[in-house]
Amino acid sequence: MGPDAVALGEAVPAAFCTDWSGAPPVRPRALLRPRSTREVAAALRICHAHRVPVVPQGGRTGLAGGAVPRADALAFSLDRMDAIEAVDAAAATLTAQAGATLQAVQQAAEGAGLRFGVDLGARGTCQIGGNIATNAGGNGVVQFGMMREQVLGLEVVLADGTVLPMLRPMLKNNTGYDLKQFFIGAEGTLGVVTRAVLRLRPAPQELRTALVALPDYPAAVALLQRLQAAFPGALAAFELMWADFFTTSLAWLNQPSPLALEHPLAVLVDVAGGDAAALDAGLQAVLEQAMEQGVAADAVIAQSQAQARSLWRIREAPTQFPARMEPVNFDVSLPLADIGGFAERCVQALAQRWPGHRTLRFGHLGDGNLHLTTDARSLPGLACVEAAHAVEGIVYALVEEMGGSVSAEHGIGTHKKPWLDASRTPQEVQAMRAIKRALDPLGLMNPGKIFD
Amino acid sequence: MGPDAVALGEAVPAAFCTDWSGAPPVRPRALLRPRSTREVAAALRICHAHRVPVVPQGGRTGLAGGAVPRADALAFSLDRMDAIEAVDAAAATLTAQAGATLQAVQQAAEGAGLRFGVDLGARGTCQIGGNIATNAGGNGVVQFGMMREQVLGLEVVLADGTVLPMLRPMLKNNTGYDLKQFFIGAEGTLGVVTRAVLRLRPAPQELRTALVALPDYPAAVALLQRLQAAFPGALAAFELMWADFFTTSLAWLNQPSPLALEHPLAVLVDVAGGDAAALDAGLQAVLEQAMEQGVAADAVIAQSQAQARSLWRIREAPTQFPARMEPVNFDVSLPLADIGGFAERCVQALAQRWPGHRTLRFGHLGDGNLHLTTDARSLPGLACVEAAHAVEGIVYALVEEMGGSVSAEHGIGTHKKPWLDASRTPQEVQAMRAIKRALDPLGLMNPGKIFD
Ligand SMILES: Cc1cc2nc3c(=O)[nH]c(=O)nc-3n(C[C@H](O)[C@H](O)[C@H](O)COP(=O)(O)OP(=O)(O)OC[C@H]3O[C@@H](n4cnc5c(N)ncnc54)[C@H](O)[C@@H]3O)c2cc1C
Ligand SMILES: Cc1cc2nc3c(=O)[nH]c(=O)nc-3n(C[C@H](O)[C@H](O)[C@H](O)COP(=O)(O)OP(=O)(O)OC[C@H]3O[C@@H](n4cnc5c(N)ncnc54)[C@H](O)[C@@H]3O)c2cc1C
Repeated sequence: MGPDAVALGEAVPAAFCTDWSGAPPVRPRALLRPRSTREVAAALRICHAHRVPVVPQGGRTGLAGGAVPRADALAFSLDRMDAIEAVDAAAATLTAQAGATLQAVQQAAEGAGLRFGVDLGARGTCQIGGNIATNAGGNGVVQFGMMREQVLGLEVVLADGTVLPMLRPMLKNNTGYDLKQFFIGAEGTLGVVTRAVLRLRPAPQELRTALVALPDYPAAVALLQRLQAAFPGALAAFELMWADFFTTSLAWLNQPSPLALEHPLAVLVDVAGGDAAALDAGLQAVLEQAMEQGVAADAVIAQSQAQARSLWRIREAPTQFPARMEPVNFDVSLPLADIGGFAERCVQALAQRWPGHRTLRFGHLGDGNLHLTTDARSLPGLACVEAAHAVEGIVYALVEEMGGSVSAEHGIGTHKKPWLDASRTPQEVQAMRAIKRALDPLGLMNPGKIFD
Repeated sequence: MGPDAVALGEAVPAAFCTDWSGAPPVRPRALLRPRSTREVAAALRICHAHRVPVVPQGGRTGLAGGAVPRADALAFSLDRMDAIEAVDAAAATLTAQAGATLQAVQQAAEGAGLRFGVDLGARGTCQIGGNIATNAGGNGVVQFGMMREQVLGLEVVLADGTVLPMLRPMLKNNTGYDLKQFFIGAEGTLGVVTRAVLRLRPAPQELRTALVALPDYPAAVALLQRLQAAFPGALAAFELMWADFFTTSLAWLNQPSPLALEHPLAVLVDVAGGDAAALDAGLQAVLEQAMEQGVAADAVIAQSQAQARSLWRIREAPTQFPARMEPVNFDVSLPLADIGGFAERCVQALAQRWPGHRTLRFGHLGDGNLHLTTDARSLPGLACVEAAHAVEGIVYALVEEMGGSVSAEHGIGTHKKPWLDASRTPQEVQAMRAIKRALDPLGLMNPGKIFD
């Protein structure tokens, strides 16, 4: 592979020693930066022969510690395999190497008059291979689904160097097991993703944004349902904000509320459509009816792109969390009907222990995904790590009790390994281990991630 | 389980001895008809202890022979587990036992003001468990995806009786491997599906149907792309018919063509939307522009439901195949751009060997899925089975050469086992076998299906 593709020990740059999860850095035995599937396969064959563990690395923007190396392992970065190999506008497909950034994929799609269905804040750095390995979610899920639903074909190299070229780009291919599904969301524990055929979507046309105040949680679910019925396949965002989040965000922005009164909940809505007039009329009709029937308490429809952007700015407060708090972040999902009750029980349980706790609640409600962030500084007498553990214990016990998921989109990695059992039965974890043993009998692919 | 749940040897009714594939009937050792997941688990534990193979059966409408018993096996019918257990209109989910028919699921969804995303001709008989085990396609794929995309949660019993309760209904759940994916499309070879949580969709609103004549295959792809851009998420059908199919169907219907001239291709289009006027205007605009630019040669928009139904009748000729021909049916998929060339090469290759062959071509072009049916009676001097093999040899060799799939939706079962290698590399089949061994080490679940 040549000397420039390999760095040993101390020569491994610090950036490759950790990820965005905040996990302490670990220097790997070596760093490999292969340039082709063939090099990936050759390197994995050698590692296999010598029983050396391998930690695949994408853009290292993961929030679960999945890409953090181990001292006995090789870090295996895909960053040099970043080619967009083909865009087929007629078939609406794009073929990319795993190391292409999400943003490069988005731009190539736009260049062909189309769009890619997944978007998230780390777009400039995270890689398509990492997005696939984590089954990333992000902003487009309510309309286009998770990363899984964007993957038509996949090329994966197994721990022993075997290449699985599952690259046929057809939507329909019922020839035996749909093997590629096994590797999506496996966090690099079953093989290295080297190439993907992705599904593209039609370019967005007209978009309308509204901010709607809600009297209570059931009203939020009712409004979601009405919008999905009125704009089938075209509801592009449904971002719920509890008052704790909403007022904090406005205070940080130093901006008056676009709504006349305070309300327990507000939701930011985007709807898309081909016809501007029909879109305006449709959105107006749904919101008027919702107000008449008490489902909505107040509503603002953005009259310009600038207004839409200013409404969205309220939702974007999380980018300020690291600067303004010591955030303990949650990314949970629950059955839709239960999210309101869960959110209430969480703040009650936290208040019981820490009356002055500050917790902000918001989420991609259209996907049943709730984010909850507690400021560790509001928990007196606890160091940050202790605070995180204590809050996690309370929140995840409720998730378990209510049948939810401790990780809606970010994955398990090492960060949530202690909590996997809250969302999976022992039988399920046992079946996962059986799959792992089948595809990686020596346990060399990203060992210690998801489960031990 | 009680005597009425078990039938031995000769007492097994003939209906349970085969499926719709036309495979010769085989009487199983016994037939089991459990009433609950608990009974399924208990029965499988006993079979496992005694090393008795098991053949899961749904509605036995499968076209690949997957549900046909073996003489040494138990047939395991889910037909008594047919409860619709819950419909949650707000969350748009439905929970059903595996034996519920597709039609029962559709009706329960409609009863809640919603719809289910999968529909196919066998709806009254096929079961949700069978639809999941085959990853069924059908009429709605271009808009809502295959069965896989409708499954939120799944309960499966493994060969040794272990119950995997993967029933959490959330869209987003990245807690380790998404195990349920492994069982979707596995044709009963990895476990018995006993229960599912399904995703529902908003009820359809306005629908418009058009028949469009096309000058050539690239024009069909261009029109598909334009419609998808103009009606994002709302193109509900794009059914392409070659002239051989179109004229035969009209002759059978004894009906004049709705189009003035003969054209090489015609496509039936359905678009859905909330606003009737916008839908009419949008469809008109796309078709007028397509005609001006030579993408469409002629077009008829149905002016009433009756007219729409009469256009659809042309597409429904396949229901008459068994009465009018000795059909050799194909269900292949290929990269979208290649389907036109493939369809031409097929008829040329067949014509070379049998100048008088009669082959009809049509397909769900929106999904990249082509159907091809050759009348065995048009191949002089060959008995039906020989004819089928000879035609298959020619067609599947072309599928292999062009990188397509020998089964877009129907699955492999026993019928297409000889052709699996045309669409999968040895490495892929080896990985499938490894998964099979991991989850069913004794090889008791539906042995001999997909691969040996
Ligand atoms: C500002 C910010 C916003 C974010 N927003 C979201 C969001 O909205 N939704 C969301 O889901 N996530 C979000 N994330 C998390 C993160 O961006 C995603 O998880 C992303 O998909 C990770 O991609 P990556 O290339 O950085 O992967 P890495 O962090 O490098 O790796 C993640 C995991 O995938 C494995 N992996 C990486 N590449 C490969 C490969 N080629 N083959 C096999 N395994 C591989 C690694 O071993 C590791 O287990 C956000 C992160 C940040 C920093
Ligand atoms: C008129 C007609 C039209 C059709 N149209 C279409 C179409 O448009 N698209 C399409 O995809 N298919 C179509 N089919 C094929 C067939 O209907 C589908 O494959 C259907 O999904 C099979 O369901 P079933 O319940 O009849 O399964 P079965 O035929 O009983 O079984 C099919 C396979 O699934 C397994 N299986 C069944 N139930 C379970 C279970 N509970 N757990 C585990 N494994 C199980 C069986 O072992 C077998 O391998 C059509 C068939 C007919 C007769």
